[in-house]
Amino acid sequence: MHPEIGRKSGKDKNDKYKGIPLTVIKRLPRYQRFLSELAAKEVERISSRELAAKMKITASQLRQDLSLFGSFGQQGYGYRVNYLLDEINQILGLSNRTTMVLIGAGHLGRAIANYDNFSKRGFIIEALFDNDPQVIGSTINNLIVKDIKDLGKHLKEAPAEIGVICTPAGVAQEIADLLVQFGIKGIWNFAPVSLKIPEQVHVEHVHIGESLMILSFQIQQQE
Amino acid sequence: MHPEIGRKSGKDKNDKYKGIPLTVIKRLPRYQRFLSELAAKEVERISSRELAAKMKITASQLRQDLSLFGSFGQQGYGYRVNYLLDEINQILGLSNRTTMVLIGAGHLGRAIANYDNFSKRGFIIEALFDNDPQVIGSTINNLIVKDIKDLGKHLKEAPAEIGVICTPAGVAQEIADLLVQFGIKGIWNFAPVSLKIPEQVHVEHVHIGESLMILSFQIQQQE
Repeated sequence: MHPEIGRKSGKDKNDKYKGIPLTVIKRLPRYQRFLSELAAKEVERISSRELAAKMKITASQLRQDLSLFGSFGQQGYGYRVNYLLDEINQILGLSNRTTMVLIGAGHLGRAIANYDNFSKRGFIIEALFDNDPQVIGSTINNLIVKDIKDLGKHLKEAPAEIGVICTPAGVAQEIADLLVQFGIKGIWNFAPVSLKIPEQVHVEHVHIGESLMILSFQIQQQE
Repeated sequence: MHPEIGRKSGKDKNDKYKGIPLTVIKRLPRYQRFLSELAAKEVERISSRELAAKMKITASQLRQDLSLFGSFGQQGYGYRVNYLLDEINQILGLSNRTTMVLIGAGHLGRAIANYDNFSKRGFIIEALFDNDPQVIGSTINNLIVKDIKDLGKHLKEAPAEIGVICTPAGVAQEIADLLVQFGIKGIWNFAPVSLKIPEQVHVEHVHIGESLMILSFQIQQQE
Protein backbone atom coordinates (compact mmCIF):
# COMPACT_ATOMS: atom_id res chain seq x y z
CA MET A 1 0.00 0.00 0.00
CA HIS A 2 2.76 2.45 0.82
CA PRO A 3 6.36 2.50 -0.40
CA GLU A 4 8.65 0.48 1.82
CA ILE A 5 11.22 3.10 2.51
CA GLY A 6 12.55 3.75 5.96
CA ARG A 7 12.88 0.00 6.45
CA LYS A 8 15.01 -0.82 9.41
CA SER A 9 17.91 -3.20 9.53
CA GLY A 10 18.01 -6.37 11.58
CA LYS A 11 15.03 -8.11 10.05
CA ASP A 12 16.40 -11.54 10.98
CA LYS A 13 16.69 -10.34 14.56
CA ASN A 14 13.17 -8.99 14.62
CA ASP A 15 11.62 -12.32 13.69
CA LYS A 16 13.14 -13.67 16.88
CA TYR A 17 10.88 -11.46 18.95
CA LYS A 18 7.57 -12.50 17.44
CA GLY A 19 5.15 -13.87 19.95
CA ILE A 20 6.67 -12.19 23.00
CA PRO A 21 3.82 -11.25 25.34
CA LEU A 22 2.82 -7.59 25.30
CA THR A 23 3.15 -7.45 29.10
CA VAL A 24 6.87 -8.18 28.70
CA ILE A 25 7.25 -5.67 25.85
CA LYS A 26 5.63 -3.04 28.03
CA ARG A 27 8.27 -3.57 30.69
CA LEU A 28 11.18 -3.04 28.27
CA PRO A 29 11.15 0.77 28.36
CA ARG A 30 11.44 0.58 32.15
CA TYR A 31 14.37 -1.81 31.89
CA GLN A 32 15.81 0.66 29.41
CA ARG A 33 15.38 3.56 31.81
CA PHE A 34 16.88 1.81 34.85
CA LEU A 35 19.80 0.48 32.83
CA SER A 36 20.42 3.94 31.32
CA GLU A 37 20.51 5.39 34.83
CA LEU A 38 22.97 2.70 35.94
CA ALA A 39 25.12 3.24 32.84
CA ALA A 40 25.17 7.00 33.51
CA LYS A 41 26.49 6.23 37.01
CA GLU A 42 29.11 3.96 35.40
CA VAL A 43 27.77 0.88 37.18
CA GLU A 44 29.26 -2.06 35.27
CA ARG A 45 27.10 -4.93 36.37
CA ILE A 46 23.93 -5.65 38.33
CA SER A 47 22.46 -8.83 39.81
CA SER A 48 19.07 -10.02 38.69
CA ARG A 49 17.90 -9.54 42.28
CA GLU A 50 18.89 -5.85 42.35
CA LEU A 51 17.48 -5.08 38.92
CA ALA A 52 14.28 -6.97 39.74
CA ALA A 53 13.87 -4.90 42.92
CA LYS A 54 14.10 -1.69 40.88
CA MET A 55 11.55 -3.08 38.43
CA LYS A 56 9.29 -4.24 41.27
CA ILE A 57 9.13 -7.75 39.85
CA THR A 58 10.65 -11.00 41.15
CA ALA A 59 14.17 -12.05 40.14
CA SER A 60 12.78 -15.15 38.48
CA GLN A 61 10.30 -13.02 36.49
CA LEU A 62 13.20 -10.81 35.40
CA ARG A 63 15.30 -13.78 34.28
CA GLN A 64 12.29 -15.12 32.41
CA ASP A 65 11.69 -11.74 30.72
CA LEU A 66 15.25 -11.38 29.54
CA SER A 67 15.56 -15.01 28.45
CA LEU A 68 12.89 -14.28 25.84
CA PHE A 69 15.30 -11.99 24.04
CA GLY A 70 18.45 -14.04 24.35
CA SER A 71 20.99 -15.02 26.95
CA PHE A 72 22.31 -11.93 28.67
CA GLY A 73 23.24 -12.97 32.19
CA GLN A 74 25.84 -15.16 33.80
CA GLN A 75 25.17 -17.27 36.88
CA GLY A 76 26.64 -15.61 39.98
CA TYR A 77 27.95 -12.65 38.02
CA GLY A 78 24.84 -10.74 37.07
CA TYR A 79 24.14 -8.70 33.97
CA ARG A 80 26.63 -6.45 32.26
CA VAL A 81 24.79 -3.11 32.26
CA ASN A 82 26.12 -1.69 29.00
CA TYR A 83 25.69 -4.93 27.10
CA LEU A 84 22.13 -5.47 28.32
CA LEU A 85 21.28 -1.83 27.60
CA ASP A 86 22.64 -2.10 24.06
CA GLU A 87 20.58 -5.22 23.45
CA ILE A 88 17.39 -3.66 24.80
CA ASN A 89 18.03 -0.54 22.73
CA GLN A 90 18.28 -2.76 19.66
CA ILE A 91 15.14 -4.68 20.53
CA LEU A 92 13.24 -1.42 20.98
CA GLY A 93 14.63 -0.06 17.74
CA LEU A 94 16.44 2.78 19.49
CA SER A 95 19.63 2.05 17.56
CA ASN A 96 17.82 2.93 14.33
CA ARG A 97 16.45 6.16 12.97
CA THR A 98 12.66 6.50 13.16
CA THR A 99 11.03 9.32 11.21
CA MET A 100 8.03 11.19 12.54
CA VAL A 101 5.65 13.99 11.58
CA LEU A 102 3.87 15.97 14.25
CA ILE A 103 0.42 17.47 13.82
CA GLY A 104 -0.79 20.24 16.10
CA ALA A 105 1.87 22.79 16.98
CA GLY A 106 0.15 24.12 20.12
CA HIS A 107 1.73 24.13 23.55
CA LEU A 108 2.05 20.36 23.84
CA GLY A 109 3.15 19.89 20.22
CA ARG A 110 5.83 22.50 20.69
CA ALA A 111 7.01 20.86 23.92
CA ILE A 112 7.38 17.54 22.12
CA ALA A 113 9.08 19.11 19.10
CA ASN A 114 11.56 20.72 21.48
CA TYR A 115 12.23 17.61 23.56
CA ASP A 116 15.74 16.52 22.70
CA ASN A 117 15.50 13.18 24.52
CA PHE A 118 13.53 11.71 21.62
CA SER A 119 15.95 12.75 18.90
CA LYS A 120 18.84 11.43 21.00
CA ARG A 121 17.17 8.02 20.78
CA GLY A 122 16.76 8.21 17.03
CA PHE A 123 13.21 9.53 16.88
CA ILE A 124 13.44 12.37 14.39
CA ILE A 125 10.57 14.78 13.84
CA GLU A 126 10.89 15.73 10.18
CA ALA A 127 7.92 18.03 9.77
CA LEU A 128 5.33 19.92 11.84
CA PHE A 129 1.80 20.74 10.71
CA ASP A 130 -0.95 22.99 11.99
CA ASN A 131 -4.15 24.56 10.66
CA ASP A 132 -3.77 27.93 12.36
CA PRO A 133 -2.63 30.64 9.90
CA GLN A 134 -0.88 32.39 12.78
CA VAL A 135 1.18 29.28 13.55
CA ILE A 136 1.86 28.11 9.97
CA GLY A 137 5.23 29.47 8.85
CA SER A 138 6.59 29.89 12.38
CA THR A 139 9.77 28.07 13.35
CA ILE A 140 9.93 25.49 16.15
CA ASN A 141 13.24 23.80 16.92
CA ASN A 142 14.54 24.59 13.42
CA LEU A 143 11.43 23.31 11.64
CA ILE A 144 8.98 25.56 9.83
CA VAL A 145 5.36 24.69 10.66
CA LYS A 146 3.55 23.62 7.49
CA ASP A 147 -0.08 23.89 6.51
CA ILE A 148 -2.06 20.77 7.48
CA LYS A 149 -3.48 20.86 3.93
CA ASP A 150 -0.04 19.78 2.70
CA LEU A 151 0.21 16.73 4.99
CA GLY A 152 -0.70 14.22 2.28
CA LYS A 153 1.62 15.78 -0.27
CA HIS A 154 4.44 15.80 2.26
CA LEU A 155 3.97 12.15 3.25
CA LYS A 156 3.89 11.07 -0.40
CA GLU A 157 7.24 12.72 -0.98
CA ALA A 158 8.78 11.88 2.37
CA PRO A 159 6.98 8.95 4.04
CA ALA A 160 7.33 8.93 7.80
CA GLU A 161 6.95 6.01 10.17
CA ILE A 162 5.16 7.65 13.08
CA GLY A 163 2.51 10.37 13.14
CA VAL A 164 2.31 12.32 16.41
CA ILE A 165 -1.15 13.76 17.06
CA CYS A 166 -1.13 16.79 19.36
CA THR A 167 -4.36 18.35 18.10
CA PRO A 168 -7.50 19.05 20.12
CA ALA A 169 -9.68 15.98 20.66
CA GLY A 170 -12.30 17.14 18.15
CA VAL A 171 -10.09 16.82 15.06
CA ALA A 172 -7.85 13.94 16.13
CA GLN A 173 -9.83 11.21 14.33
CA GLU A 174 -9.78 13.18 11.08
CA ILE A 175 -6.00 13.59 11.34
CA ALA A 176 -5.58 9.92 12.23
CA ASP A 177 -7.58 8.94 9.11
CA LEU A 178 -5.31 11.12 6.95
CA LEU A 179 -2.18 9.61 8.49
CA VAL A 180 -3.48 6.09 7.88
CA GLN A 181 -4.48 6.98 4.32
CA PHE A 182 -0.98 8.22 3.60
CA GLY A 183 0.74 5.10 4.86
CA ILE A 184 1.90 5.92 8.36
CA LYS A 185 2.89 2.82 10.37
CA GLY A 186 2.27 4.04 13.89
CA ILE A 187 0.31 6.78 15.62
CA TRP A 188 1.41 8.38 18.87
CA ASN A 189 -1.71 10.05 20.13
CA PHE A 190 -1.75 12.82 22.72
CA ALA A 191 -5.30 13.99 21.97
CA PRO A 192 -7.56 13.06 24.89
CA VAL A 193 -9.88 10.89 22.82
CA SER A 194 -10.04 7.28 21.68
CA LEU A 195 -9.33 6.72 17.97
CA LYS A 196 -10.59 4.17 15.47
CA ILE A 197 -7.54 2.90 13.62
CA PRO A 198 -7.24 -0.11 11.29
CA GLU A 199 -5.48 -3.08 12.85
CA GLN A 200 -2.33 -2.90 10.73
CA VAL A 201 -1.48 0.54 12.12
CA HIS A 202 -0.14 0.61 15.67
CA VAL A 203 -1.36 3.21 18.12
CA GLU A 204 -0.03 4.30 21.47
CA HIS A 205 -2.10 6.76 23.46
CA VAL A 206 -0.55 9.12 25.97
CA HIS A 207 -3.44 10.07 28.19
CA ILE A 208 -1.51 12.41 30.45
CA GLY A 209 -4.57 13.13 32.55
CA GLU A 210 -5.10 9.49 33.55
CA SER A 211 -2.16 9.38 35.92
CA LEU A 212 -3.34 12.66 37.45
CA MET A 213 -6.71 11.08 38.18
CA ILE A 214 -5.05 8.07 39.81
CA LEU A 215 -2.93 10.42 41.92
CA SER A 216 -6.07 12.32 42.85
CA PHE A 217 -7.77 9.09 43.95
CA GLN A 218 -4.80 8.03 46.05
CA ILE A 219 -4.52 11.40 47.78
CA GLN A 220 -8.21 11.35 48.60
CA GLN A 221 -7.89 7.92 50.16
CA GLN A 222 -5.21 9.16 52.49
CA GLU A 223 -7.17 12.09 53.84
CA MET B 1 3.19 17.13 59.83
CA HIS B 2 1.57 19.68 57.57
CA PRO B 3 -1.58 21.69 58.09
CA GLU B 4 -4.66 19.84 56.98
CA ILE B 5 -6.08 22.44 54.69
CA GLY B 6 -7.42 21.62 51.28
CA ARG B 7 -9.15 18.64 52.83
CA LYS B 8 -11.72 17.16 50.53
CA SER B 9 -15.29 16.39 51.35
CA GLY B 10 -16.84 12.95 51.33
CA LYS B 11 -14.54 11.32 53.84
CA ASP B 12 -17.15 8.71 54.75
CA LYS B 13 -17.43 7.84 51.08
CA ASN B 14 -13.69 7.53 50.67
CA ASP B 15 -13.38 4.92 53.37
CA LYS B 16 -15.65 2.74 51.26
CA TYR B 17 -12.99 2.50 48.56
CA LYS B 18 -10.17 1.26 50.77
CA GLY B 19 -8.74 -2.04 49.64
CA ILE B 20 -9.87 -1.80 46.04
CA PRO B 21 -7.15 -3.39 43.88
CA LEU B 22 -4.86 -0.94 42.12
CA THR B 23 -5.55 -2.69 38.78
CA VAL B 24 -9.19 -1.63 39.09
CA ILE B 25 -8.27 1.92 40.15
CA LYS B 26 -6.03 2.17 37.11
CA ARG B 27 -8.98 1.38 34.84
CA LEU B 28 -11.16 4.16 36.29
CA PRO B 29 -9.69 7.01 34.23
CA ARG B 30 -10.46 5.00 31.09
CA TYR B 31 -14.04 4.42 32.23
CA GLN B 32 -14.13 8.15 32.88
CA ARG B 33 -12.91 8.94 29.37
CA PHE B 34 -15.30 6.60 27.55
CA LEU B 35 -18.25 7.75 29.63
CA SER B 36 -17.34 11.41 29.03
CA GLU B 37 -17.27 10.73 25.30
CA LEU B 38 -20.68 9.03 25.50
CA ALA B 39 -22.09 11.87 27.59
CA ALA B 40 -20.78 14.40 25.08
CA LYS B 41 -22.67 12.49 22.37
CA GLU B 42 -25.75 12.59 24.61
CA VAL B 43 -25.90 8.80 24.87
CA GLU B 44 -28.17 8.12 27.84
CA ARG B 45 -27.41 4.52 28.65
CA ILE B 46 -25.00 1.78 27.74
CA SER B 47 -25.02 -1.97 28.32
CA SER B 48 -22.22 -3.59 30.28
CA ARG B 49 -21.39 -5.55 27.11
CA GLU B 50 -20.89 -2.40 25.01
CA LEU B 51 -18.92 -0.55 27.67
CA ALA B 52 -16.80 -3.63 28.32
CA ALA B 53 -16.00 -3.88 24.60
CA LYS B 54 -14.75 -0.28 24.61
CA MET B 55 -12.67 -1.02 27.68
CA LYS B 56 -11.34 -4.24 26.15
CA ILE B 57 -12.37 -6.25 29.21
CA THR B 58 -15.16 -8.82 29.63
CA ALA B 59 -18.66 -7.76 30.65
CA SER B 60 -18.36 -9.79 33.83
CA GLN B 61 -15.06 -8.07 34.65
CA LEU B 62 -16.76 -4.72 34.12
CA ARG B 63 -19.68 -5.61 36.38
CA GLN B 64 -17.22 -6.79 39.00
CA ASP B 65 -15.18 -3.55 38.72
CA LEU B 66 -18.19 -1.31 39.14
CA SER B 67 -19.74 -3.40 41.92
CA LEU B 68 -16.70 -2.50 44.05
CA PHE B 69 -17.85 1.10 44.09
CA GLY B 70 -21.56 0.57 44.54
CA SER B 71 -24.56 -0.56 42.58
CA PHE B 72 -24.78 1.39 39.36
CA GLY B 73 -26.41 -0.91 36.82
CA GLN B 74 -29.79 -2.44 36.33
CA GLN B 75 -30.32 -5.90 34.89
CA GLY B 76 -31.44 -5.71 31.28
CA TYR B 77 -31.30 -1.93 31.22
CA GLY B 78 -27.61 -1.14 31.37
CA TYR B 79 -25.87 1.78 32.98
CA ARG B 80 -27.10 5.36 32.98
CA VAL B 81 -24.15 7.20 31.43
CA ASN B 82 -24.44 10.49 33.32
CA TYR B 83 -25.07 8.84 36.65
CA LEU B 84 -22.15 6.44 36.30
CA LEU B 85 -19.90 9.27 35.09
CA ASP B 86 -20.83 11.43 38.08
CA GLU B 87 -20.08 8.58 40.45
CA ILE B 88 -16.72 7.85 38.85
CA ASN B 89 -15.87 11.56 38.90
CA GLN B 90 -16.60 11.57 42.63
CA ILE B 91 -14.55 8.45 43.24
CA LEU B 92 -11.61 9.98 41.38
CA GLY B 93 -12.00 13.24 43.25
CA LEU B 94 -12.80 15.18 40.08
CA SER B 95 -15.78 16.82 41.74
CA ASN B 96 -13.43 18.50 44.19
CA ARG B 97 -10.78 21.15 43.83
CA THR B 98 -7.21 19.86 43.91
CA THR B 99 -4.43 22.40 44.28
CA MET B 100 -1.10 22.01 42.50
CA VAL B 101 2.25 23.75 42.15
CA LEU B 102 4.34 23.19 39.04
CA ILE B 103 8.12 23.27 39.01
CA GLY B 104 10.02 23.72 35.77
CA ALA B 105 8.45 26.21 33.39
CA GLY B 106 10.18 24.95 30.26
CA HIS B 107 8.35 23.76 27.15
CA LEU B 108 6.58 20.85 28.85
CA GLY B 109 5.81 22.80 32.02
CA ARG B 110 4.31 25.56 29.95
CA ALA B 111 2.22 23.09 27.96
CA ILE B 112 0.81 21.61 31.17
CA ALA B 113 0.20 25.03 32.71
CA ASN B 114 -1.74 25.96 29.57
CA TYR B 115 -3.76 22.76 29.36
CA ASP B 116 -7.32 23.69 30.26
CA ASN B 117 -8.55 20.09 30.50
CA PHE B 118 -6.97 19.75 33.93
CA SER B 119 -8.49 22.88 35.42
CA LYS B 120 -11.88 21.86 34.01
CA ARG B 121 -11.62 18.75 36.18
CA GLY B 122 -10.76 20.71 39.28
CA PHE B 123 -6.97 20.44 39.13
CA ILE B 124 -5.84 24.00 39.74
CA ILE B 125 -2.22 25.05 39.26
CA GLU B 126 -1.76 27.80 41.82
CA ALA B 127 1.90 28.63 41.29
CA LEU B 128 4.76 28.03 38.86
CA PHE B 129 8.44 27.90 39.77
CA ASP B 130 11.68 27.91 37.82
CA ASN B 131 15.36 28.59 38.50
CA ASP B 132 16.10 30.43 35.24
CA PRO B 133 16.35 34.22 35.78
CA GLN B 134 15.08 34.69 32.24
CA VAL B 135 11.93 32.70 32.98
CA ILE B 136 11.27 33.95 36.54
CA GLY B 137 8.81 36.84 36.39
CA SER B 138 7.32 35.85 33.04
CA THR B 139 3.60 35.13 32.81
CA ILE B 140 2.15 31.77 31.78
CA ASN B 141 -1.61 31.34 31.64
CA ASN B 142 -2.10 34.28 34.05
CA LEU B 143 0.46 33.03 36.55
CA ILE B 144 3.78 34.76 37.17
CA VAL B 145 6.68 32.29 37.35
CA LYS B 146 8.30 32.45 40.78
CA ASP B 147 11.85 31.79 41.89
CA ILE B 148 12.37 28.16 42.94
CA LYS B 149 14.11 29.52 46.03
CA ASP B 150 10.69 30.65 47.25
CA LEU B 151 9.03 27.23 46.88
CA GLY B 152 9.23 26.39 50.59
CA LYS B 153 7.98 29.79 51.67
CA HIS B 154 5.10 29.55 49.20
CA LEU B 155 4.04 26.07 50.34
CA LYS B 156 4.11 27.11 54.00
CA GLU B 157 1.73 29.95 53.25
CA ALA B 158 -0.39 28.13 50.67
CA PRO B 159 -0.04 24.35 51.00
CA ALA B 160 -0.81 22.50 47.79
CA GLU B 161 -1.83 18.89 47.35
CA ILE B 162 0.13 17.95 44.24
CA GLY B 163 3.58 18.98 43.05
CA VAL B 164 4.14 18.69 39.31
CA ILE B 165 7.79 18.13 38.39
CA CYS B 166 8.66 19.25 34.85
CA THR B 167 12.36 19.89 35.48
CA PRO B 168 15.29 18.18 33.74
CA ALA B 169 16.06 14.73 35.14
CA GLY B 170 19.19 15.94 36.95
CA VAL B 171 17.39 18.13 39.49
CA ALA B 172 14.10 16.22 39.82
CA GLN B 173 15.10 14.33 43.00
CA GLU B 174 16.17 17.54 44.72
CA ILE B 175 12.83 19.15 43.86
CA ALA B 176 10.93 16.06 44.98
CA ASP B 177 12.76 16.17 48.34
CA LEU B 178 11.74 19.81 48.78
CA LEU B 179 8.12 19.04 47.92
CA VAL B 180 8.04 16.18 50.43
CA GLN B 181 9.71 18.34 53.07
CA PHE B 182 7.04 21.01 52.66
CA GLY B 183 4.13 18.62 53.03
CA ILE B 184 2.97 17.86 49.49
CA LYS B 185 0.67 14.80 49.30
CA GLY B 186 1.31 13.66 45.76
CA ILE B 187 3.96 14.10 43.08
CA TRP B 188 3.18 14.06 39.39
CA ASN B 189 6.56 13.49 37.81
CA PHE B 190 7.36 14.24 34.15
CA ALA B 191 11.14 14.19 34.57
CA PRO B 192 12.54 11.09 32.86
CA VAL B 193 14.08 9.64 35.99
CA SER B 194 12.98 7.41 38.86
CA LEU B 195 12.53 9.18 42.20
CA LYS B 196 12.99 8.06 45.79
CA ILE B 197 9.93 9.22 47.68
CA PRO B 198 8.77 8.25 51.20
CA GLU B 199 5.87 5.84 51.25
CA GLN B 200 3.28 8.26 52.56
CA VAL B 201 3.62 10.49 49.50
CA HIS B 202 2.03 9.20 46.31
CA VAL B 203 3.86 9.44 43.02
CA GLU B 204 2.67 9.03 39.46
CA HIS B 205 5.29 9.08 36.74
CA VAL B 206 4.49 10.16 33.22
CA HIS B 207 7.26 8.64 31.16
CA ILE B 208 6.13 9.98 27.82
CA GLY B 209 8.97 8.28 26.00
CA GLU B 210 7.96 4.79 27.12
CA SER B 211 4.96 4.57 24.83
CA LEU B 212 7.12 5.84 21.96
CA MET B 213 9.53 2.96 22.55
CA ILE B 214 6.68 0.45 22.56
CA LEU B 215 5.39 1.94 19.31
CA SER B 216 8.89 1.70 17.87
CA PHE B 217 9.10 -1.98 18.83
CA GLN B 218 5.73 -2.75 17.27
CA ILE B 219 6.55 -0.97 14.02
CA GLN B 220 9.83 -2.84 13.77
CA GLN B 221 8.06 -6.16 14.23
CA GLN B 222 5.81 -5.43 11.31
CA GLU B 223 8.57 -4.68 8.85
